[in-house]
Amino acid sequence: MLNYIDCSKEKLLEEKALLEKTYEGYVSQHLKLDMSRGKPAGTQLDLNNDILKSLDTYITKEGLDARNYGVLDGIPEAKKLFSDLLGIREEQIIIGGNSSLNLMYDTFVRLFLFGTRGNTPWCKLDKVKFLCPSPGYDRHFAICEDLGIEMITVPMHEEGPDMDYVESLVKEDDSIKGIWCVPLYSNPQGVCYSDETVERLAKMETAAKDFRIFWDNAYGVHHIYEEKQLKDIFEVAKVFNHEDRVYYFFSTSKITFPGAGVALMAASDANIAEIKKHMGVQTIGHDKLNQLRTVHYFKDADGIRRHMKKLGDELRPKFDIVLTTLEKELAGTGLLSWTKPNGGYFVAVDTLEGCAKETVALAKKAGVTLTGAGATFPYGNDPKDQNIRLAPSYPTLEELKVAIELFCVCVKLAGVNKLLAE
Amino acid sequence: MLNYIDCSKEKLLEEKALLEKTYEGYVSQHLKLDMSRGKPAGTQLDLNNDILKSLDTYITKEGLDARNYGVLDGIPEAKKLFSDLLGIREEQIIIGGNSSLNLMYDTFVRLFLFGTRGNTPWCKLDKVKFLCPSPGYDRHFAICEDLGIEMITVPMHEEGPDMDYVESLVKEDDSIKGIWCVPLYSNPQGVCYSDETVERLAKMETAAKDFRIFWDNAYGVHHIYEEKQLKDIFEVAKVFNHEDRVYYFFSTSKITFPGAGVALMAASDANIAEIKKHMGVQTIGHDKLNQLRTVHYFKDADGIRRHMKKLGDELRPKFDIVLTTLEKELAGTGLLSWTKPNGGYFVAVDTLEGCAKETVALAKKAGVTLTGAGATFPYGNDPKDQNIRLAPSYPTLEELKVAIELFCVCVKLAGVNKLLAE
Repeated sequence: MLNYIDCSKEKLLEEKALLEKTYEGYVSQHLKLDMSRGKPAGTQLDLNNDILKSLDTYITKEGLDARNYGVLDGIPEAKKLFSDLLGIREEQIIIGGNSSLNLMYDTFVRLFLFGTRGNTPWCKLDKVKFLCPSPGYDRHFAICEDLGIEMITVPMHEEGPDMDYVESLVKEDDSIKGIWCVPLYSNPQGVCYSDETVERLAKMETAAKDFRIFWDNAYGVHHIYEEKQLKDIFEVAKVFNHEDRVYYFFSTSKITFPGAGVALMAASDANIAEIKKHMGVQTIGHDKLNQLRTVHYFKDADGIRRHMKKLGDELRPKFDIVLTTLEKELAGTGLLSWTKPNGGYFVAVDTLEGCAKETVALAKKAGVTLTGAGATFPYGNDPKDQNIRLAPSYPTLEELKVAIELFCVCVKLAGVNKLLAE
Repeated sequence: MLNYIDCSKEKLLEEKALLEKTYEGYVSQHLKLDMSRGKPAGTQLDLNNDILKSLDTYITKEGLDARNYGVLDGIPEAKKLFSDLLGIREEQIIIGGNSSLNLMYDTFVRLFLFGTRGNTPWCKLDKVKFLCPSPGYDRHFAICEDLGIEMITVPMHEEGPDMDYVESLVKEDDSIKGIWCVPLYSNPQGVCYSDETVERLAKMETAAKDFRIFWDNAYGVHHIYEEKQLKDIFEVAKVFNHEDRVYYFFSTSKITFPGAGVALMAASDANIAEIKKHMGVQTIGHDKLNQLRTVHYFKDADGIRRHMKKLGDELRPKFDIVLTTLEKELAGTGLLSWTKPNGGYFVAVDTLEGCAKETVALAKKAGVTLTGAGATFPYGNDPKDQNIRLAPSYPTLEELKVAIELFCVCVKLAGVNKLLAE
């Protein structure tokens, strides 16, 4: 493989000419592919269609009519299903509507309007800051931006956020009120938080008494290669008397249907009581028929685990294509670095500094829409302009193959342009 | 019929003895009936069971896969259905989750956190007041209480809120930020706002530039006797350039299933754009399969109208029992006043002053749970302690007959006790 970094200017010009020709070949194909979001393919959703007919009865095991009003925090059998799956006590769980993002947003809203555990409501503070391990999830960052929260970028390492940095920040600054975490198969890098990272997050001293960890376990059962395990943060937090620090989120959006799944949050008993006080004013209850549908479909936690193996089988060939194509086209070129995720929905890559935007723009011009460069950083601003999130789930295998081959050409072309400009 | 007001003390004592005997007869029956909430009966919900099998396809008319992510504000065919039903432009409509209460709460949240149309966010103000026509809906008042909004009670008349009083208040006080309205078959009295009331609400000058009408048209198509029509408030508001004043809410909670219906809100184009900006951060979208289920089930607005006739037929005998029993037992006694609603879910009655709590307590002791006395007023405080909301929908006809007969005994007993104490 040609290492472009070491090439002479002449060689680079020669390569540029070849790459431009190849690139024009793609442009002339008039591709129209969308790889911008972590959106399941129709074929993946088809695996779930039986859930639409799964509702055997609208009466819960406890004899409750799920069609009618009542039950603010979810029907008991849905709580049990997710309790068994995630190892969280049923009493700690609130089942929401179809969107865990909505639960996260509303949790912020309560912190802003009411504060938590007697602390000042965040809307009354001059400044609220949040730690944003990055690359991260753009919709998390969008919530902060919407609420006027100042985002502090924290580097991500192999075992999670840079904990030395996190600890040093939260110890000193009481306006830092929390941190975003996607602890298993993180979006976009697929990083799995090590036990030590989980422990340090649970244990660390924070200047803010109302410091909160938004623990978005979106990919908690979304294994593709190895099955990674996540340390129970509630258990560790309890040891340090920091149970109130953790808000845990999960959903079936990427298990059943993104548009019609079931979301949940979990927290300490004190937090749950506080949340329910306001949630009980906000709504009489979420869609219990959909909760029941989900329970009837999976039967039990093992039912979900078996289902996730099928989804893994569906997604693995797509990840294989991305990873083998990157390996084949870019390993040793010096133009791209990436790590193989073991689960989740994405492959994150780093181009040469200053090349992400151009790479994405080149792909776009050739008809392949990638996640916008910068989207994985607070304010859409990747300071080194090098991170790109690849979302292999939506295209077909054939489409994906073409898209990733084109992507590699774009990476090379942008890289060569950059090297020539130096 | 005995007019208790004119009775001698001796006669009252005689009546009291008789009533107590009758009352004890009910107590010994060990009744267990819940008439506390406007909850449909199972038999009413059974009329909708086909909606559970109504989903012919998960692809919308526009070719969108409703199982997947996307479409923040509702699928077009759901917007069209409700647009046709309610006479609101599709562009003005946002389809939400299963709860219009949730849409109302979230609308308040946005006003508190972001303000509207460039005005100061309400959380930054020292004082926010809201007009609460009363008797009214306890869950509306609960939202105000949760958010620390000072509630001002406004008397309800036959044509809606006391508009002279409303106009005089809002003209002077810019901390009065809005008013709650259930304009058709109001909860609990079944009042239908007259054209003049709607016009005055839309037209009136308000000191607050960001004055908002929360127009909760919960019973907009819930006719039982006569079909009352409601003047289009958007149309009138437009004339006076006050279109941004109105937030309109509706849901199918009492059309299909309370636990799994579809809610919507409607507003001016400028308001909708403002709402979507924040809502798009809060969620990727609501449950589109349930929207599609609703559309497939009803087909069109006439489908809903036909269905509402069936629901009216189901509810009418229950309202008949309440109204004929009240008439038979209490007309001319001077102990209770009420008006016949033409639709909605409730019959509201007024006891003698100071008798509502005792009446409800007596019924409770005999096994019939009514809506708590006071619940229909801000802070749960009915200054005259006389209003009681009767919710006839949930019990069976037989249960309801017994419950209302008992209720009449309780009204009389509480009334006689009061007259004797004078």
